[in-house]
Amino acid sequence: MERVYADHASASPVKKEVLDVMLPYFEEHFGNPSNVYDIGSEIKHVIEEQRAKVASLIGASPDEIIFTSSGAEANNLAIKGVAFSKQKKGNHIIVSSIEHHSVLNSARFLERLDYEVTFLPVDENGLVAPARLSNALRPETILVSIMHANNEIGTIEPISELTAVCKERGIIFHTDAVASVGNIPVDVNQLNVDLLSLSGISLGAPKGTGALYFNKKVRLMPLIHGGIQESGRRGGTENVPAIIGLGKAAEITQRNLPDKMDHVRRLRDLLVTGIRERVEEVKLTGHPGKRLPGHASFCFKGIEGEAMVFMLTQAGIYSNTGSACASKALKTSPVLVAIGIPPDLAQGSIVFTLDFNNRVEEIEYILEKLPPAVARLRSFSPIWGRKTPVGPEITCVR
Amino acid sequence: MERVYADHASASPVKKEVLDVMLPYFEEHFGNPSNVYDIGSEIKHVIEEQRAKVASLIGASPDEIIFTSSGAEANNLAIKGVAFSKQKKGNHIIVSSIEHHSVLNSARFLERLDYEVTFLPVDENGLVAPARLSNALRPETILVSIMHANNEIGTIEPISELTAVCKERGIIFHTDAVASVGNIPVDVNQLNVDLLSLSGISLGAPKGTGALYFNKKVRLMPLIHGGIQESGRRGGTENVPAIIGLGKAAEITQRNLPDKMDHVRRLRDLLVTGIRERVEEVKLTGHPGKRLPGHASFCFKGIEGEAMVFMLTQAGIYSNTGSACASKALKTSPVLVAIGIPPDLAQGSIVFTLDFNNRVEEIEYILEKLPPAVARLRSFSPIWGRKTPVGPEITCVR
Repeated sequence: MERVYADHASASPVKKEVLDVMLPYFEEHFGNPSNVYDIGSEIKHVIEEQRAKVASLIGASPDEIIFTSSGAEANNLAIKGVAFSKQKKGNHIIVSSIEHHSVLNSARFLERLDYEVTFLPVDENGLVAPARLSNALRPETILVSIMHANNEIGTIEPISELTAVCKERGIIFHTDAVASVGNIPVDVNQLNVDLLSLSGISLGAPKGTGALYFNKKVRLMPLIHGGIQESGRRGGTENVPAIIGLGKAAEITQRNLPDKMDHVRRLRDLLVTGIRERVEEVKLTGHPGKRLPGHASFCFKGIEGEAMVFMLTQAGIYSNTGSACASKALKTSPVLVAIGIPPDLAQGSIVFTLDFNNRVEEIEYILEKLPPAVARLRSFSPIWGRKTPVGPEITCVR
Repeated sequence: MERVYADHASASPVKKEVLDVMLPYFEEHFGNPSNVYDIGSEIKHVIEEQRAKVASLIGASPDEIIFTSSGAEANNLAIKGVAFSKQKKGNHIIVSSIEHHSVLNSARFLERLDYEVTFLPVDENGLVAPARLSNALRPETILVSIMHANNEIGTIEPISELTAVCKERGIIFHTDAVASVGNIPVDVNQLNVDLLSLSGISLGAPKGTGALYFNKKVRLMPLIHGGIQESGRRGGTENVPAIIGLGKAAEITQRNLPDKMDHVRRLRDLLVTGIRERVEEVKLTGHPGKRLPGHASFCFKGIEGEAMVFMLTQAGIYSNTGSACASKALKTSPVLVAIGIPPDLAQGSIVFTLDFNNRVEEIEYILEKLPPAVARLRSFSPIWGRKTPVGPEITCVR
């Protein structure tokens, strides 16, 4: 087996069909869509077609879509855009404690500007309880941002129940759906959200693509001020090839999603069952049922996640780790802390994210290579076999 | 003549050499540069090579470059990034009155947050006078942002004289060099700026590319909060193909710039002289000498710029208009107002921006087709021949 790539939440190859439709827009159809003459205006028209495709994927109207340069930008636009627009209405924002850094750090930035932020706890499966959200609401709450699915533990939040709590009080609700759009059906009306972020990376579109859905009733301060592009909501020349790639990827996703879900769920279940059968002292993190179909995340006792990722790559297997060593900050993953995983166990986090092109044989290959890798790492471990939990001062193998 | 494209400030085809180096990074080298394993870390290394190329083009160090999704984003990051970092030090910002919308509207956004902004007037050639800047400085001034070259009238500002005024008082200076980098030599040390925005579009890189140079002494609040990408200064997965395209374009620009400048200056001079010889009542806007070499901007009395752009496209000639009809806002160009062009004359703005691939025959073709187009439009004009200036209520031909 040459390479088993099972880290699709980090990156995926751009789909060939997607790249093919983008290519003419680099050299041949190069015009600026804001221009009045044909070279520009024809492209404007093509952009609007892509907007309709992205809207269709999530049950929105085309004029409710703002193209961005990433899911992170969409999250920043949603959170700061509402905060700055509603500053006279209130200064309280609620986010869950397991949000992506682009949400958490946007919220922390607003704290420096005299906004108040509640970081809502989650249960042991990573779920936000609607009652807990309800209790956290204040008269001055202007925005709630809770992710649709968590990228690290795969848990899918009960968004429509959470929005119900906010809607009755007229509070704006944003969801970061970067990890869900492309992996499960997402419908903005069913979720009843006001704002929803998505990333092209999850759809087989290139890096540098993303979008924000916004309910037209929501006033939004631009994040990137500029000209009249994106109805005045995002300045800068439209990134035409990227938008065309995102549109095509949305179209393909909409067509393939049910089959993809069936496929990756079957592989994921094989992987989870197989690992549990073959390895002792391993915990599936995140909700056992309410989770992304192609997402399998574990904590292995007595190993360090980054070392495990390295060891697996020796066998050609590409996975990820929620242990924050991987993200170059020497502390335990905040998500795993939030769901109550003890620090020693949290260090041993491994995440597999599967896509349509993964195959059964690849899962079998992982199941062949992973158990001896775990055993080997445990044999090096000073903590494996200890009865008492180790402290958070444990450092990474580098 | 099939097509004479002379609107390179709006958009240019991506250079073939640039696209060629980008292509492998869509499908083949698709990894996330933040990942620890080879598929990611190898790309991280390539990104750093591009950072060095962009830095080299403007005389900076690689670790002084932040990749962005556009020149507009770089401008927003510079202005808001300084404003939010220095909010305890002061709340006064100075920008020139002829800045790009991404600067002007960032400044206006900050005004809503209790910052004070001075919009500095310019002279009839569009120049900001260092003495005028000096007089506008206050103890609470934290940032001055004055563009290097104006996209609409081509004027090059005396940045090193303007920075001298600020440096002696320790005030941070940003310049929007989107219109200059790629068209004239730009050196951050010679200009003595703290922050400088550039766009890939001006270099033959694709849309969706840009960068901000920052002096390491300047603290900068991120515009897009998120993870550790770009040294924590810009969240979101790095747009790898775009960055590689920008790096290659910077390399090519650095190599070709002197020849390109000679070439476009010769063509531009032909065009300016030719139009002045052939058309009466036409004004060259912007500074006659201190201007971008490939930039020719005019106001024709008695015509409406957008109608002229349309008429020229009938002959296959692509130009632009500073008349804000083109940018879909029915008012006179603020830049032309700022340099004191009367509204009736400002309506007749036409801008030609040339690149290396434009040829002498193309200029001759423009000189053949433009005078009769002007005459034809003037024959329709209700204002042509009037002695008194017409009011600003003049509407666009649509």
